[in-house]
Amino acid sequence: MSATFPAKPRIAIVGAGALGCYYGARLAKAGNEVHFLVRSGRAAIVARGIRVKTPAERFHLKKVLAHATAEDIGPCDLVIVSVKATANAALARILPPLIGPNTLVLTLQNGLGVEEPVAEVVGGERVLGAICFVGVTRTAPGVVTCAFPGLVMLGEFGRPAQSRTRDVAARFEAAGVKCEAQDNLEELRWKKLVWNVPFNGLAIAAGGVTTDVIMADEGLRTLVRRLMEEILEAAAKFGHAIPRSFMDLQFERTTKLGRYQPSSLIDFREGRAIELEEIWGEPVRRAKSVGVPVPRLEMLYWLIKRALAARPAGKKR
Amino acid sequence: MSATFPAKPRIAIVGAGALGCYYGARLAKAGNEVHFLVRSGRAAIVARGIRVKTPAERFHLKKVLAHATAEDIGPCDLVIVSVKATANAALARILPPLIGPNTLVLTLQNGLGVEEPVAEVVGGERVLGAICFVGVTRTAPGVVTCAFPGLVMLGEFGRPAQSRTRDVAARFEAAGVKCEAQDNLEELRWKKLVWNVPFNGLAIAAGGVTTDVIMADEGLRTLVRRLMEEILEAAAKFGHAIPRSFMDLQFERTTKLGRYQPSSLIDFREGRAIELEEIWGEPVRRAKSVGVPVPRLEMLYWLIKRALAARPAGKKR
Repeated sequence: MSATFPAKPRIAIVGAGALGCYYGARLAKAGNEVHFLVRSGRAAIVARGIRVKTPAERFHLKKVLAHATAEDIGPCDLVIVSVKATANAALARILPPLIGPNTLVLTLQNGLGVEEPVAEVVGGERVLGAICFVGVTRTAPGVVTCAFPGLVMLGEFGRPAQSRTRDVAARFEAAGVKCEAQDNLEELRWKKLVWNVPFNGLAIAAGGVTTDVIMADEGLRTLVRRLMEEILEAAAKFGHAIPRSFMDLQFERTTKLGRYQPSSLIDFREGRAIELEEIWGEPVRRAKSVGVPVPRLEMLYWLIKRALAARPAGKKR
Repeated sequence: MSATFPAKPRIAIVGAGALGCYYGARLAKAGNEVHFLVRSGRAAIVARGIRVKTPAERFHLKKVLAHATAEDIGPCDLVIVSVKATANAALARILPPLIGPNTLVLTLQNGLGVEEPVAEVVGGERVLGAICFVGVTRTAPGVVTCAFPGLVMLGEFGRPAQSRTRDVAARFEAAGVKCEAQDNLEELRWKKLVWNVPFNGLAIAAGGVTTDVIMADEGLRTLVRRLMEEILEAAAKFGHAIPRSFMDLQFERTTKLGRYQPSSLIDFREGRAIELEEIWGEPVRRAKSVGVPVPRLEMLYWLIKRALAARPAGKKR
């Protein structure tokens, strides 16, 4: 694992959803050898490539290396896991053929406890994680619109950033994706929960509402703050001192979003999988494991779980 | 207030909903002089009377004394308030003409803090309250079906039962309504909340579900217990020692109910008023006033409040 990370790495993108298509296409366009492992919509991507639209540009990646199996791809320098955490059971089968002696595996998944399932398959020492602050939607197979390019915060699983972390970040930067190597991935994940837990959660549990509705409702707005406080208290017990001013920042940021539909609400409405365990379940379990009561967070978890169970068959979790 | 309560009292029923029609018709059938103050549907009740269907019998009260104003009724021995607590603002206007020197005013309303608005108008010393364990629905003006006759628990506002309390209970019993005079009305109200808060509340907040769904969902079932524990803890601070076995009893009872639609859910779905403040808001405020944290109860209160706000205009509480 001490080899230098190559300047033009061989990259596998596991999953061709919005994130996979967007980052994969950018990395390919920058000259990297990018292989996509695509479960559904592969024929369309092979035939028509990947089209990306951003506020600044449009581009068309005509020739896409799209594969049906990991064996067809073989070992890579970097494997980017961009399937939802809810599909993680398949990783034990998908990842091994992609791993060589120096392969790094980067998961872009949301929530807490998403590096662990990857580490179980490939070993923790090659695992990286990233938090993607980005607004990107897939409108058809291989067709993505990026409304908000944002940035990627990249870190090592259980370790501070290393030279290889900065190397990977540099490849993203070279591909036109703002990317920062960070020393404390775990803390970043807790910080992202400060927004995701209340807003993604209440958007679903309060009957399908946008963030402006939550902000305008006195009870829900107070509840958001109480949920944030529970997250902060739990994070603090794990050594992550998130200042209370970070909560205020979230409120300010959310006010500016206006009538915003959190991604989990979109997924919920469209019958897609939701990271129930990673965003709500795992934080509850971790908080309880260190004796921090999180009654509202747990209640929210149960209500979302119930809402998911009530969706039509085949659309659950 | 020391006069003996008459054997055949003159009674005013304020409100001709399910409870008002049912108890009023029973009391009239038993030979009491019962006057109904009816806001809507009066013509139908005058023309066709009140029809009652119970598991054991059917009866038709043909001649109903239905009035449009309290002035038309005048002073009574007993005034039964059977409008929803959400209509309490009108009591200051409705009650005074019905009050004589020895008039008792009995409120059948649900929740906490329902005697106080009556006491503000007529003075606390003449106020009684009752908790009605009954399943009765109004299908049309003056037409009620009683699926479960149950019983009425009757008490004094802030005092133990007196001889007059037992007198009133006896009038109910004579009219075929099982009725017990109780020494601690306030404690009874907390006990009723042990069921009403979680089941009526989650039926609405969990997306419109019947009790069997709540009981079958592990998260919701656990949440019911946590909510009950919060109620018990708050009640205990007010000197009401409700044993934990009372919770188990509620679970047993609810299992037997099967696919039961709590009354608040029916009201919610039909766009009718819901006792948001009496069942959820007031317990939160009282618990906080004595330093008992009730995070789940408060969250439930906010979620129901939001659900009510989301109903179409004109249906809001």
